[in-house]
Amino acid sequence: MKSVSIIGSAGSIGTQTLDVVSRHPHEFRVVGLASFNEVDVLERQVRRFKPKIVSLAVEDAAKELRKRLKGTGVEVVSGPQGLIEVAVYPNSTVVTAVVGSVGLQPTLEAIKAGNDIALANKETLVCAGEIVTKEVERRGAKLLPIDSEHCAIWQCKEGYPLESIERIILTCSGGPFRTTPKEDLDKVATVERALKHPKWNMGPKITIDSATLMNKGLEVIEAHWLFGIPYERIKVVIHPQSLVHSMVEFKDGSMQAQIGVHDMRIPIQYALSYPKRLPAGKESHLDFTTMGPLEFGKPDMERFPCLAYAYEAGKLGGTMPAAMNAANEVAVVEFFLKGKAKFGDIPRAVRKTMDAARRQRLSTLKVPSRLTVMNLAKSSPFKLIREPVFKKNPALEDILKADRWAREYVRSILNGSDESPMGKG
Amino acid sequence: MKSVSIIGSAGSIGTQTLDVVSRHPHEFRVVGLASFNEVDVLERQVRRFKPKIVSLAVEDAAKELRKRLKGTGVEVVSGPQGLIEVAVYPNSTVVTAVVGSVGLQPTLEAIKAGNDIALANKETLVCAGEIVTKEVERRGAKLLPIDSEHCAIWQCKEGYPLESIERIILTCSGGPFRTTPKEDLDKVATVERALKHPKWNMGPKITIDSATLMNKGLEVIEAHWLFGIPYERIKVVIHPQSLVHSMVEFKDGSMQAQIGVHDMRIPIQYALSYPKRLPAGKESHLDFTTMGPLEFGKPDMERFPCLAYAYEAGKLGGTMPAAMNAANEVAVVEFFLKGKAKFGDIPRAVRKTMDAARRQRLSTLKVPSRLTVMNLAKSSPFKLIREPVFKKNPALEDILKADRWAREYVRSILNGSDESPMGKG
Repeated sequence: MKSVSIIGSAGSIGTQTLDVVSRHPHEFRVVGLASFNEVDVLERQVRRFKPKIVSLAVEDAAKELRKRLKGTGVEVVSGPQGLIEVAVYPNSTVVTAVVGSVGLQPTLEAIKAGNDIALANKETLVCAGEIVTKEVERRGAKLLPIDSEHCAIWQCKEGYPLESIERIILTCSGGPFRTTPKEDLDKVATVERALKHPKWNMGPKITIDSATLMNKGLEVIEAHWLFGIPYERIKVVIHPQSLVHSMVEFKDGSMQAQIGVHDMRIPIQYALSYPKRLPAGKESHLDFTTMGPLEFGKPDMERFPCLAYAYEAGKLGGTMPAAMNAANEVAVVEFFLKGKAKFGDIPRAVRKTMDAARRQRLSTLKVPSRLTVMNLAKSSPFKLIREPVFKKNPALEDILKADRWAREYVRSILNGSDESPMGKG
Repeated sequence: MKSVSIIGSAGSIGTQTLDVVSRHPHEFRVVGLASFNEVDVLERQVRRFKPKIVSLAVEDAAKELRKRLKGTGVEVVSGPQGLIEVAVYPNSTVVTAVVGSVGLQPTLEAIKAGNDIALANKETLVCAGEIVTKEVERRGAKLLPIDSEHCAIWQCKEGYPLESIERIILTCSGGPFRTTPKEDLDKVATVERALKHPKWNMGPKITIDSATLMNKGLEVIEAHWLFGIPYERIKVVIHPQSLVHSMVEFKDGSMQAQIGVHDMRIPIQYALSYPKRLPAGKESHLDFTTMGPLEFGKPDMERFPCLAYAYEAGKLGGTMPAAMNAANEVAVVEFFLKGKAKFGDIPRAVRKTMDAARRQRLSTLKVPSRLTVMNLAKSSPFKLIREPVFKKNPALEDILKADRWAREYVRSILNGSDESPMGKG
């Protein structure tokens, strides 16, 4: 029986994970749950799945939950430290289903504690791919992808060594504006239309990312780190039906594709049950004899430049993917979704941020690691260092700094307070 | 370096196998070649690939080749025994690429000699699946399928245990008469049109089998024995583009498909290089961004009843698949291809043969294994036994007898000498 913790249990991936657990009560047991402030949801989940520890990010919400759960023996914790306590619960598989860079720290702590990670949080590998994968290797932990595309590649390459792979091919629905001409994008791509993803029902941020193809770009970076494949050998193919979830092409020309219905419970269950496969309901099986044709095409990077920017940021590496990701997140969540920016402003803001990241420098007060008489003898041991936002081999702190800088930078340019006005595209 | 022998080296699979060998001279060495009577072809192949032993079925052809190869040190053998000598050459992988039941005996001998089999001969498993797979298990040999469909399934299931498989799905182009209405089949399906396979360039017998869907039926029986999956869990899906070569559906609803260009060298090379994958030329790689849509549909067993008959024969087991296969072969090769029968006569002949096989009995002179005084004391130790053509647990001899009986039976009914005239469909 596997012990499972869920970071982000009230969200879409979190609740579907609990659905998988309740289908297989003899395979999985929930030991930890963490969420933001959803007291009612968490209370129901705790009473049903009986975890050992529960965390809410908001302290007041945690207090309320603690009151309601009095006498149950369930430990209720809170804040960033609470999240980490759930993540490091011993001998568990941690499903990291929170959105945003808040997932990074608990994921790293879980890996250090020797736990396996069922990864649904994109930022973990996009922002800190090198740090995370090195830690995974050092601790012998497993990184089990839940994203349907990465789970597909994982299944396709199962049983084959890395050197047999020629390239990996991520499929992409193309989003709701796949056929919209470039000049009409700003007019046609309203918030309402952008939120209607043709195939998957997801949260608003990722749905907009699917419309700009930034989501696929982030997945390219994730795939690079998950499978150790250079960017030149990661391809994106438009596939409007979204039934082929991704593919692996081998050196001999043979390709493996993973195919299935649009049901995130399939990859979630695979990540949890691996290396076993457990049965699923009839609704999880695809009927090949009644479905329509499967189409494939080339992505248009001119109309959807975010995909090209993600390749560029990924190849540059270092802090650039974190800066790009943060710029995109702010442009989408704080501006486009609130009607304060046009669809085309998203790639424009990302472009400007990436350009600025290579020029701009951040001030850091450098404190010597040890104060010595030698240091004190010099004029001043404390130095104000100005370092570029873009660093090639960053520490975790550099990544978080680049993330914060990019958010501020995008706010300044999209609020019009930047020296240079937004281009007209 | 792997030693390779090719039974049927002058045919389509044989020459493509040699093409694979010459692409990878550091991986493979040819030790044996066998063919029917193609002296010129064999001479060229011997001079180029320098095998140790060569066999020609026709003694006169072997004599001629022996003369021409004098002084090269290559051993030239002939007849059924020669075929076996090539098959049992020590420590080799034997590519069985001959068509017909002539491949059965040398394949079994090769397995007994501990050689691995790269299997392209359909009759081996269709006629004697149980005997062959039991022998493979007993000797610890490998049965490596070369058929593109079976190689696809093999690749899709690699890394996963048998119990994780829900079903296997064989794809089928549907043949040249996929859209022809039933009432027009006999008129439209001329020999010339039937020989134009929409996707693969193959020999005439297998091309006609593709048009009647008997080829897919034989593949269903092969798949049953190769992968140990019951017939109820082997499905056939029409896929006119023939780019998805087959699929595996797992218990959790996830499916794996193997995809690639129409190039038999891919499965041949995979069977020879397994578990490694070796690089292939650019022409063996498929461009997903430029190909058309992939379509799928249900096979029409009413218009193409041979597929249903193969399922029926497979489920009955015993000698029935051998009888069905022999009936089909005679109906196609000796009648339809020679303009002596209509397209619809092929399934009708197969149907009648299968029905007759369950009624008719064969006479066998039973000789006691040891003549003893006890035997002699009885009236006669030799008995004429009348056994049914259809036997559930046949010995190899029973299978060969059913095969011979079915050939004669089909000749009698298609020549009109049978008591009951051919039905009008």
